[in-house]
Amino acid sequence: MPPPTAPKSGDALFASVERVNAELFTLTYGAIVRQLLTDLEEVEEVNKQLDQMGYNIGTRLVDEFLAKSNVSRCADFKETADVIAKLGFKMFLGVTATVTNWDAEGTSCSFVLEDNPLVDFVELPDTCQGLQYCNVLSGVIRGALEMVSMKTEVTWVRDMLRGDDAYEMRVKLTKQVPEEYPYKDDD
Amino acid sequence: MPPPTAPKSGDALFASVERVNAELFTLTYGAIVRQLLTDLEEVEEVNKQLDQMGYNIGTRLVDEFLAKSNVSRCADFKETADVIAKLGFKMFLGVTATVTNWDAEGTSCSFVLEDNPLVDFVELPDTCQGLQYCNVLSGVIRGALEMVSMKTEVTWVRDMLRGDDAYEMRVKLTKQVPEEYPYKDDD
Repeated sequence: MPPPTAPKSGDALFASVERVNAELFTLTYGAIVRQLLTDLEEVEEVNKQLDQMGYNIGTRLVDEFLAKSNVSRCADFKETADVIAKLGFKMFLGVTATVTNWDAEGTSCSFVLEDNPLVDFVELPDTCQGLQYCNVLSGVIRGALEMVSMKTEVTWVRDMLRGDDAYEMRVKLTKQVPEEYPYKDDD
Repeated sequence: MPPPTAPKSGDALFASVERVNAELFTLTYGAIVRQLLTDLEEVEEVNKQLDQMGYNIGTRLVDEFLAKSNVSRCADFKETADVIAKLGFKMFLGVTATVTNWDAEGTSCSFVLEDNPLVDFVELPDTCQGLQYCNVLSGVIRGALEMVSMKTEVTWVRDMLRGDDAYEMRVKLTKQVPEEYPYKDDD
């Protein structure tokens, strides 16, 4: 077997992909949220739609990630979480996340974001206090992980738009489907 | 008066701004279009919404453009069009447009895009043949120009999603409001 190619660094990975202006992205995402608020009225419904939108996006982005990052199979959920935090966030948003608050079983952890391009210029009006503005991100993580056989629940536990000091997303692995290979995987 | 700072090149300008992954942007925009198609049903209504969304975004983006590009007042509509094509498109989408097909009066021209990050992976189903998928872009141009006192009509005349060989947006200047200055503008 040829030696595996080393995974790229987050910076190299981000530099290797096509990019657009972050403000354009931020404003475009803001336009979606506004549209959903107008159309759906219930904030809870908007939260669901944003999550579902993110899920659909995540199931697509994982392919670009695997194709460009040179990351091969991760040993466990811990390694997966590190790869997402250091490479996944960097490749798509240009920022990195910190992985923290692991539970004893190694099946739940938090991604903490101090910089979040999604929310530049955003302020929630009083009427939208229940809005989980960044649900698209948690949906993306859930969708992407499902494509690599990990079922997760992803929830926001801190949100700067609600006055917290950072963005913290809790990721809980609920089921890991063993991947089956048509070949024997040894050297 | 100090000599004016030279406008940045498109490449320098694009390199100077925060960016995100183009595929994430493309999929996010696709999610908006899909959502609008579900909510509004009429393709014509979706076209209008995308244009309005773009208009709102354009009125915001123009500030970032003016702040970062070092472009000062353009002499006329022709110069404005060149700046948009070479610097504006580059700064936000990472591509440049060609300005062509000027009318005799110098008030109508076309922007031709050969590369359009908005439409990667997009195919229009038969039920959406009237959809003007890129209406957000024409809306952005209209919104941004209105902020610098130029009222325009912007329409798509060629669209690769409909089988044309390029994207061509027609921009017609309908009214130019003279800017008033509180100071006398001379040396």
